[in-house]
Amino acid sequence: MGTVERSGDDHTSEVESGEEEEIVGGGELAQHLMKSGITRNEMLAAITNRIHVEALASLPPNVRRRIRALRTLQKEFVDIEAKFYSEVHALECKYEKLYKPLFEKRAQIVSGSYEPTDEECLNPWRDENEEEELARAVQGAAITDGTEKKPAEEEVKAIEPAMDPNVKGIPDFWYTIFRNVSMLCEMMQEHDEPILKCLQDIKVQMHDDPIGFTLEFYFAPNDYFTNTVLTKEYSMKCKPDEENPLEFEGPEIYSCKGCEINWKKGKNVTVKTIKKKQKHKSRGSVRTVTKSVQADSFFNFFSPPAMPDDPNSTLASDIQALLTADFEIGHYIRERVVSRAVLLYTGEGLDEDDDDDYEEEEDSYSDEDSGTEEVSDAED
Amino acid sequence: MGTVERSGDDHTSEVESGEEEEIVGGGELAQHLMKSGITRNEMLAAITNRIHVEALASLPPNVRRRIRALRTLQKEFVDIEAKFYSEVHALECKYEKLYKPLFEKRAQIVSGSYEPTDEECLNPWRDENEEEELARAVQGAAITDGTEKKPAEEEVKAIEPAMDPNVKGIPDFWYTIFRNVSMLCEMMQEHDEPILKCLQDIKVQMHDDPIGFTLEFYFAPNDYFTNTVLTKEYSMKCKPDEENPLEFEGPEIYSCKGCEINWKKGKNVTVKTIKKKQKHKSRGSVRTVTKSVQADSFFNFFSPPAMPDDPNSTLASDIQALLTADFEIGHYIRERVVSRAVLLYTGEGLDEDDDDDYEEEEDSYSDEDSGTEEVSDAED
Repeated sequence: MGTVERSGDDHTSEVESGEEEEIVGGGELAQHLMKSGITRNEMLAAITNRIHVEALASLPPNVRRRIRALRTLQKEFVDIEAKFYSEVHALECKYEKLYKPLFEKRAQIVSGSYEPTDEECLNPWRDENEEEELARAVQGAAITDGTEKKPAEEEVKAIEPAMDPNVKGIPDFWYTIFRNVSMLCEMMQEHDEPILKCLQDIKVQMHDDPIGFTLEFYFAPNDYFTNTVLTKEYSMKCKPDEENPLEFEGPEIYSCKGCEINWKKGKNVTVKTIKKKQKHKSRGSVRTVTKSVQADSFFNFFSPPAMPDDPNSTLASDIQALLTADFEIGHYIRERVVSRAVLLYTGEGLDEDDDDDYEEEEDSYSDEDSGTEEVSDAED
Repeated sequence: MGTVERSGDDHTSEVESGEEEEIVGGGELAQHLMKSGITRNEMLAAITNRIHVEALASLPPNVRRRIRALRTLQKEFVDIEAKFYSEVHALECKYEKLYKPLFEKRAQIVSGSYEPTDEECLNPWRDENEEEELARAVQGAAITDGTEKKPAEEEVKAIEPAMDPNVKGIPDFWYTIFRNVSMLCEMMQEHDEPILKCLQDIKVQMHDDPIGFTLEFYFAPNDYFTNTVLTKEYSMKCKPDEENPLEFEGPEIYSCKGCEINWKKGKNVTVKTIKKKQKHKSRGSVRTVTKSVQADSFFNFFSPPAMPDDPNSTLASDIQALLTADFEIGHYIRERVVSRAVLLYTGEGLDEDDDDDYEEEEDSYSDEDSGTEEVSDAED
């Protein structure tokens, strides 16, 4: 519990009892921090913080007392604000139910189990003629004899076989979204691609009390695993932290849970076996050791780092960074990918934000095969 | 209205009628765009967009038809989502009323018209001892004879007169926030500072139907203008755009209105008079011309560019950029500054975002005195 000061002029007596302690100010602090190996930004933040703290400390006691009263009001503010955000979450749950029929129809059109009517294919706000003309132009170019000049990416595309005009639904719908959205694309490895071509739908199930959501990834029967749905569950809290209540900024994800993937024999892309040659120090004989290590893969998304049972324990900073990145990805899939899938498929809904906001996560699922010499295919 | 295609195999006939139009692909497009002087990022976006458009155009007609059906579903989605956001805005209006008593008490403590009780000054989640020790250390250092080594910023501070220990309220509360928050600090000029020291409160009035909000800046009687409150009103809309409905991302500010500032004679910091010497071409005689031009000032915030009467007319891109920056500032003051003022005052609530997110606005209120020779103080 904090100490309480009386208001009024008790300033002089405090100054007279002032001790001549060493004060670590901007300059010395910088040297101190530099030695501890933190980044320049962290150092600037620490110095700025120190300057603020010292500026406050130099204020008369009755002014500092009033600032504490404002903090008390701020605590009351975040307690009310938490209720506001809980009401918003309840609204989100309510609207999720209203969106559901639209998403189900989308899944049916994508899979080909439902063929839309002519009326359903009208986009009156768009200029369809332009699209039609371009389609004729592109498809006209595709059957010419190749003597005319073609732009580079047309040549690349020519290698891929043309799509069967009688194809069902919208092939590779979700896989194309993974390729278009940089945050998802960065997680996807070459060996993930044939598996993600079997991804048929992503659904969100909202949870009220305790709040949170589950992402469900639906797969067509495939050669890789026997699951038909892979899940990732996110738990959220909407309460100011007891130790730092004023830092409250609304609901946040605080933990997540993956699911077990039942890989078919030899198909687990999240592990790889490494063969290492070891030379005996004295005898000089060589032996080969085989080791399984984690391989880069989107499917590591379903095996996030384990959360400690004690919610108050502090995590290692690298684990914390992995989880923070994971939470942002989960939030992004829920907020942007599921609700705006068609726009990410066509590219209409891709903006700079897709590239910039999430660049930090680039190295989140890093490779761990340092020091390996030979890498063979995974044996499960 | 768009054209409608029948589903089924009408692909072959289309290909046969294909025209051999010139297709502008990635490479040629880049050259074309380079010549038009756009930035590298804009060019990349245009090329990426073109690649997406061509990829779509190369799909069989019945697949493109299904994509249009998904767009129709997406239109239904944003129409429902708009209702969700309207409900959230209504919630915001409801909670604004609950926050009001807290903000009013804050204003009273800041002005000194209310002295908080001891109980109101308890911050049980904080370690007050640490703060007290630092205060003693800093204030002890301030009265030493100066022979010991002092960090640089302590020396700077020593020039400012110490605050009267019997001072009322929290002096310079809002002015300090302007100094601490980089987005506000960038707008503040030296001549604005004595005026902003008279800023006593910032309030938000929420508007329901039509939605929006007004920022109210309350000033103590001062030597600069006769207004006691300056206002900035923001109008918002929460409806998908008719021409681009799928771009809807929630409510957005679309216009704002400032207020007239009744400057006292010679005190208008938003204009400056420029004296220009002009030499007569043939006679060689010199005359001095006096001209009033806009001066950089935070108070230009209350004279935003005029909005066109026709909401569908397009604005010049520089005006549009000014307004976009203005809207972000208005949103930021409402969302962050008013609701978390004490944390911005103490520095606790300043994070990297305060610096990074809004760096783009740095040059929004640019100086217009190019080509001037002498600048005198403003004469109103």
